[in-house]
Amino acid sequence: MESFESHQASSSEMRAFTWLVLLVQLLGLSGVIMVAVWMGHFRGGFAWQSNPDLEFNYHPLFMVIGMIFLYGDAILAYRVFRNDNKLYIKILHACLHVSALIFASVGLKAVFDSHNLAKDPKPNLYSLHSWLGLTTVILFSSQWVIGFVSFLWPKVGMGLRRRLMPYHVFFGVAILCFACATCLMGITEKAIWSMPKDYSKKPAEGILANCLGLILVAVVTLIVYLVSRFEYKRPPSPEEEHLQISDE
Amino acid sequence: MESFESHQASSSEMRAFTWLVLLVQLLGLSGVIMVAVWMGHFRGGFAWQSNPDLEFNYHPLFMVIGMIFLYGDAILAYRVFRNDNKLYIKILHACLHVSALIFASVGLKAVFDSHNLAKDPKPNLYSLHSWLGLTTVILFSSQWVIGFVSFLWPKVGMGLRRRLMPYHVFFGVAILCFACATCLMGITEKAIWSMPKDYSKKPAEGILANCLGLILVAVVTLIVYLVSRFEYKRPPSPEEEHLQISDE
Repeated sequence: MESFESHQASSSEMRAFTWLVLLVQLLGLSGVIMVAVWMGHFRGGFAWQSNPDLEFNYHPLFMVIGMIFLYGDAILAYRVFRNDNKLYIKILHACLHVSALIFASVGLKAVFDSHNLAKDPKPNLYSLHSWLGLTTVILFSSQWVIGFVSFLWPKVGMGLRRRLMPYHVFFGVAILCFACATCLMGITEKAIWSMPKDYSKKPAEGILANCLGLILVAVVTLIVYLVSRFEYKRPPSPEEEHLQISDE
Repeated sequence: MESFESHQASSSEMRAFTWLVLLVQLLGLSGVIMVAVWMGHFRGGFAWQSNPDLEFNYHPLFMVIGMIFLYGDAILAYRVFRNDNKLYIKILHACLHVSALIFASVGLKAVFDSHNLAKDPKPNLYSLHSWLGLTTVILFSSQWVIGFVSFLWPKVGMGLRRRLMPYHVFFGVAILCFACATCLMGITEKAIWSMPKDYSKKPAEGILANCLGLILVAVVTLIVYLVSRFEYKRPPSPEEEHLQISDE
């Protein structure tokens, strides 16, 4: 980061950026498909409250869609659409985060239901996965509210916004990393509980679970790289500067 | 990060920096003590190859000391000693990384021994924890070798060093995050296997394990914050600039 200084991207850098963004999409979608196959094929498919065991299966699927794929794309939106009207991108950024939050909420509902509605109810919130996961969702929601009030509506003054921005960006990226770490612990728990004797024999399901974990790590690493590497590269157009000042 | 621009730190920023570095040390040491108490008190203490079960207990202890505490301090050394001779700090940075690697190697030997020397030998390298952990140690070692050759001895030309530096910093921070994620999965595995029925009853050991995980997350988050927030704040003295040019 020491040399990630402010400069306009060269055309070869922009080509690399575009390919890396496409790679993130490809890996992100692969992750979503892999968790869907794990839960849908190996773990018996999906159901809602009629079958709490199968309702659980929505939890990993919806958390990966919301807290990795949509959240990651919300972060990348600022870099991908760097030449478009900033207000539109802010709205897109906020909407993608709302979608992420909706998926995460349904995913949380699924796991609480799967514990509480089981014939032999299971306790909630005792594992490190659940502690870090809940912390992550609370931080994510707080970040959304603070971001909305500070940058979208009603907005705070330009000076305060400038001071808040580094924290908004840092926590945005940090919370994405917390989400990824929580997913890795969730995969570990699920693999151990679902394959108590077989996980160590490297069955297809175990390999799939491990590859899913590595793909989530790759997705989040690439997103953080793109955000930090291309952090200064949104060219502020005169029109935007005017907009920023005029819509104080 | 968008506003983490190059500027000299104000005295209040430097005070905040100093307090945050002290906080990292305090939390890092707490983490080391907690994992020592977990393994030493709750898991029966330590032994070498005479008792493979107890030999395992060195694994979490040495990995946390090496891959979180020493590795984190190696990263911070550049910021903490920003006013000292750069060559000395480079050597300190490299030495702290070597110490981290020694602890990690003994920690890895402990876990392989605990599997291979057990009466009923256990399989190695099937879990996501082990896959990401091995990847992390290989990346860490490669980063050390590339960093040593590029920046310490024999060194590459200044132009190439400048181009390599952002990648060196990015991967340094990323590998620390991978190490933390691997620890979290290790804690999850150990908690589930050690307390198969009790973990969900929130016993003291479970609370300790969870708090250890959260503390490791806090340590790594603070280190990444300090590195990215204060990234530009090493003032290059004329003497150093002379040194950098003259020792090409």
